[in-house]
Amino acid sequence: MAEFRDPPPYFQAHVFVCCNRRPDGHPRGSCAARGSEKLRDYMKVRAKELGLKGVRINQAGCLDRCEFGPTLVIYPEGIWYQPETPADVDEILTAHLAEGGRVPRLMLTEKDVPPPKR
Amino acid sequence: MAEFRDPPPYFQAHVFVCCNRRPDGHPRGSCAARGSEKLRDYMKVRAKELGLKGVRINQAGCLDRCEFGPTLVIYPEGIWYQPETPADVDEILTAHLAEGGRVPRLMLTEKDVPPPKR
Repeated sequence: MAEFRDPPPYFQAHVFVCCNRRPDGHPRGSCAARGSEKLRDYMKVRAKELGLKGVRINQAGCLDRCEFGPTLVIYPEGIWYQPETPADVDEILTAHLAEGGRVPRLMLTEKDVPPPKR
Repeated sequence: MAEFRDPPPYFQAHVFVCCNRRPDGHPRGSCAARGSEKLRDYMKVRAKELGLKGVRINQAGCLDRCEFGPTLVIYPEGIWYQPETPADVDEILTAHLAEGGRVPRLMLTEKDVPPPKR
Protein backbone atom coordinates (compact mmCIF):
# COMPACT_ATOMS: atom_id res chain seq x y z
CA MET A 1 0.00 0.00 0.00
CA ALA A 2 2.47 2.63 -1.06
CA GLU A 3 1.67 3.89 -4.52
CA PHE A 4 1.80 7.38 -3.02
CA ARG A 5 4.51 9.34 -1.26
CA ASP A 6 3.23 11.11 1.82
CA PRO A 7 4.41 14.66 2.49
CA PRO A 8 6.76 15.12 5.43
CA PRO A 9 5.13 15.80 8.80
CA TYR A 10 3.92 19.33 9.26
CA PHE A 11 4.56 19.16 13.01
CA GLN A 12 7.32 17.03 14.48
CA ALA A 13 5.09 16.40 17.47
CA HIS A 14 1.41 17.16 17.75
CA VAL A 15 -0.05 17.03 21.25
CA PHE A 16 -3.77 16.78 21.92
CA VAL A 17 -4.98 17.48 25.44
CA CYS A 18 -8.50 16.25 26.15
CA CYS A 19 -10.60 19.18 27.35
CA ASN A 20 -13.95 17.46 27.26
CA ARG A 21 -16.23 18.48 30.11
CA ARG A 22 -19.18 16.44 31.29
CA PRO A 23 -21.76 17.65 33.80
CA ASP A 24 -20.82 17.30 37.46
CA GLY A 25 -21.73 13.89 38.78
CA HIS A 26 -21.46 12.09 35.44
CA PRO A 27 -20.32 8.52 36.17
CA ARG A 28 -17.41 8.61 33.73
CA GLY A 29 -16.20 12.01 34.85
CA SER A 30 -14.27 14.06 32.30
CA CYS A 31 -10.79 15.41 31.72
CA ALA A 32 -11.85 19.04 32.10
CA ALA A 33 -13.56 18.25 35.39
CA ARG A 34 -10.20 16.80 36.48
CA GLY A 35 -8.29 19.96 35.59
CA SER A 36 -7.13 19.36 32.02
CA GLU A 37 -7.78 22.91 30.83
CA LYS A 38 -5.26 24.38 33.26
CA LEU A 39 -2.72 21.72 32.28
CA ARG A 40 -3.28 22.54 28.60
CA ASP A 41 -2.72 26.25 29.25
CA TYR A 42 0.39 25.50 31.26
CA MET A 43 1.74 23.17 28.59
CA LYS A 44 1.32 25.78 25.85
CA VAL A 45 3.13 28.42 27.87
CA ARG A 46 5.95 26.09 28.88
CA ALA A 47 6.43 24.72 25.36
CA LYS A 48 6.97 28.28 24.20
CA GLU A 49 9.29 29.09 27.09
CA LEU A 50 11.35 26.00 26.34
CA GLY A 51 11.60 27.07 22.70
CA LEU A 52 10.40 23.71 21.40
CA LYS A 53 10.31 23.84 17.61
CA GLY A 54 7.87 21.91 15.45
CA VAL A 55 5.70 21.10 18.46
CA ARG A 56 2.03 22.01 18.52
CA ILE A 57 -0.13 21.76 21.63
CA ASN A 58 -3.87 21.58 20.99
CA GLN A 59 -6.98 20.95 22.96
CA ALA A 60 -9.27 18.22 21.74
CA GLY A 61 -12.75 16.85 22.31
CA CYS A 62 -13.34 13.62 24.23
CA LEU A 63 -10.48 11.18 23.61
CA ASP A 64 -12.56 8.38 25.16
CA ARG A 65 -10.13 7.34 27.86
CA CYS A 66 -12.05 9.28 30.47
CA GLU A 67 -11.30 6.93 33.36
CA PHE A 68 -7.64 7.95 33.11
CA GLY A 69 -8.11 11.69 32.74
CA PRO A 70 -6.63 14.12 32.41
CA THR A 71 -5.28 12.49 29.28
CA LEU A 72 -3.22 13.64 26.33
CA VAL A 73 -1.86 11.91 23.26
CA ILE A 74 1.26 12.74 21.27
CA TYR A 75 1.40 12.00 17.56
CA PRO A 76 2.78 10.67 15.30
CA GLU A 77 4.07 8.22 17.90
CA GLY A 78 0.63 7.77 19.48
CA ILE A 79 1.81 7.83 23.08
CA TRP A 80 -0.80 8.53 25.74
CA TYR A 81 -0.09 10.24 29.02
CA GLN A 82 -2.01 10.93 32.18
CA PRO A 83 -0.48 14.10 33.67
CA GLU A 84 -1.94 15.27 36.94
CA THR A 85 0.23 18.26 37.82
CA PRO A 86 2.25 20.98 36.10
CA ALA A 87 5.36 19.07 37.18
CA ASP A 88 4.08 16.05 35.22
CA VAL A 89 3.59 18.27 32.19
CA ASP A 90 7.13 19.61 32.55
CA GLU A 91 8.46 16.07 32.61
CA ILE A 92 6.58 15.19 29.40
CA LEU A 93 7.81 18.37 27.71
CA THR A 94 11.40 17.75 28.65
CA ALA A 95 11.83 13.99 28.49
CA HIS A 96 9.48 13.21 25.60
CA LEU A 97 9.12 16.31 23.45
CA ALA A 98 12.55 17.87 23.89
CA GLU A 99 14.67 14.73 24.27
CA GLY A 100 12.63 12.15 22.34
CA GLY A 101 12.33 9.78 25.28
CA ARG A 102 9.35 8.56 27.26
CA VAL A 103 7.94 9.09 30.73
CA PRO A 104 6.89 5.56 31.64
CA ARG A 105 5.38 6.44 35.02
CA LEU A 106 2.80 8.69 33.31
CA MET A 107 2.10 6.56 30.24
CA LEU A 108 -1.09 4.69 29.50
CA THR A 109 -0.12 1.26 28.29
CA GLU A 110 -1.78 -1.85 26.95
CA LYS A 111 -1.76 -3.17 30.48
CA ASP A 112 -3.84 -0.23 31.71
CA VAL A 113 -6.36 -0.30 28.93
CA PRO A 114 -6.77 -2.93 26.27
CA PRO A 115 -7.07 -1.54 22.75
CA PRO A 116 -10.64 -1.02 21.51
CA LYS A 117 -12.25 -3.78 19.48
CA ARG A 118 -11.41 -3.46 15.78
CA MET B 1 16.55 6.26 20.38
CA ALA B 2 14.75 3.01 21.10
CA GLU B 3 15.56 1.78 24.56
CA PHE B 4 11.81 1.56 25.09
CA ARG B 5 9.07 -0.40 23.36
CA ASP B 6 6.03 1.74 22.63
CA PRO B 7 2.58 0.24 23.21
CA PRO B 8 0.53 -0.51 20.08
CA PRO B 9 -1.68 2.30 18.81
CA TYR B 10 -4.88 2.77 20.74
CA PHE B 11 -6.69 4.00 17.63
CA GLN B 12 -5.77 2.81 14.14
CA ALA B 13 -6.64 6.26 12.84
CA HIS B 14 -7.22 9.37 14.89
CA VAL B 15 -8.81 12.28 13.07
CA PHE B 16 -8.73 15.83 14.38
CA VAL B 17 -11.06 18.36 12.77
CA CYS B 18 -10.18 21.97 13.51
CA CYS B 19 -13.18 23.67 15.08
CA ASN B 20 -11.48 26.89 16.07
CA ARG B 21 -13.67 29.95 15.66
CA ARG B 22 -12.36 33.49 15.36
CA PRO B 23 -14.54 36.59 15.44
CA ASP B 24 -16.18 37.57 12.15
CA GLY B 25 -13.88 39.74 10.07
CA HIS B 26 -10.63 38.35 11.51
CA PRO B 27 -8.03 38.51 8.72
CA ARG B 28 -7.01 34.84 9.04
CA GLY B 29 -10.57 33.56 9.21
CA SER B 30 -11.12 30.27 11.01
CA CYS B 31 -12.18 26.73 10.27
CA ALA B 32 -15.43 26.99 12.24
CA ALA B 33 -16.34 30.17 10.37
CA ARG B 34 -15.85 28.11 7.20
CA GLY B 35 -18.21 25.37 8.32
CA SER B 36 -15.94 22.85 10.02
CA GLU B 37 -18.33 22.07 12.87
CA LYS B 38 -20.98 20.72 10.50
CA LEU B 39 -18.35 18.68 8.68
CA ARG B 40 -17.12 17.24 12.00
CA ASP B 41 -20.67 16.27 12.97
CA TYR B 42 -21.24 14.70 9.57
CA MET B 43 -17.94 12.82 9.71
CA LYS B 44 -18.76 11.33 13.13
CA VAL B 45 -22.17 10.13 11.97
CA ARG B 46 -20.85 8.70 8.71
CA ALA B 47 -17.90 6.94 10.34
CA LYS B 48 -20.37 5.15 12.58
CA GLU B 49 -22.69 4.34 9.68
CA LEU B 50 -19.78 2.91 7.72
CA GLY B 51 -18.83 0.76 10.72
CA LEU B 52 -15.23 1.92 10.70
CA LYS B 53 -13.38 0.20 13.54
CA GLY B 54 -10.48 1.70 15.44
CA VAL B 55 -11.19 5.15 14.02
CA ARG B 56 -11.80 8.12 16.29
CA ILE B 57 -13.06 11.48 15.03
CA ASN B 58 -12.35 14.42 17.35
CA GLN B 59 -12.65 18.15 17.21
CA ALA B 60 -9.54 20.15 17.99
CA GLY B 61 -8.47 23.69 18.74
CA CYS B 62 -6.67 25.82 16.14
CA LEU B 63 -4.43 23.61 13.99
CA ASP B 64 -2.71 26.73 12.63
CA ARG B 65 -3.33 26.15 8.95
CA CYS B 66 -6.23 28.57 8.96
CA GLU B 67 -5.74 29.80 5.39
CA PHE B 68 -6.70 26.33 4.18
CA GLY B 69 -9.67 25.74 6.43
CA PRO B 70 -11.69 23.77 7.05
CA THR B 71 -8.75 21.51 7.84
CA LEU B 72 -8.35 18.12 9.46
CA VAL B 73 -5.36 15.91 10.15
CA ILE B 74 -5.24 12.12 10.36
CA TYR B 75 -2.70 10.43 12.63
CA PRO B 76 -0.48 8.50 12.93
CA GLU B 77 0.21 9.14 9.25
CA GLY B 78 -0.02 12.93 9.66
CA ILE B 79 -1.98 13.59 6.50
CA TRP B 80 -3.79 16.91 6.23
CA TYR B 81 -6.99 17.46 4.31
CA GLN B 82 -9.10 20.41 3.35
CA PRO B 83 -12.66 19.10 2.98
CA GLU B 84 -15.26 21.61 1.90
CA THR B 85 -18.38 19.49 1.56
CA PRO B 86 -19.96 16.36 3.01
CA ALA B 87 -19.04 14.62 -0.26
CA ASP B 88 -15.39 15.48 0.41
CA VAL B 89 -15.70 14.00 3.90
CA ASP B 90 -17.23 10.84 2.44
CA GLU B 91 -14.31 10.51 0.06
CA ILE B 92 -11.80 10.81 2.93
CA LEU B 93 -13.74 8.27 4.99
CA THR B 94 -13.89 5.77 2.18
CA ALA B 95 -10.61 6.17 0.33
CA HIS B 96 -8.34 7.00 3.25
CA LEU B 97 -9.87 5.62 6.43
CA ALA B 98 -11.61 2.54 5.08
CA GLU B 99 -9.24 1.60 2.25
CA GLY B 100 -5.93 3.02 3.49
CA GLY B 101 -5.39 5.16 0.42
CA ARG B 102 -5.19 8.90 -0.06
CA VAL B 103 -7.35 11.63 -1.58
CA PRO B 104 -4.73 13.74 -3.33
CA ARG B 105 -7.13 16.40 -4.58
CA LEU B 106 -8.02 17.32 -0.98
CA MET B 107 -4.60 16.96 0.60
CA LEU B 108 -2.42 19.75 1.89
CA THR B 109 1.09 19.12 0.67
CA GLU B 110 4.53 20.60 1.03
CA LYS B 111 3.85 22.52 -2.13
CA ASP B 112 0.81 24.20 -0.61
CA VAL B 113 2.41 25.10 2.67
CA PRO B 114 6.06 24.83 3.56
CA PRO B 115 6.70 23.16 6.92
CA PRO B 116 7.04 25.51 9.89
CA LYS B 117 10.54 26.58 10.95
CA ARG B 118 12.11 24.09 13.33
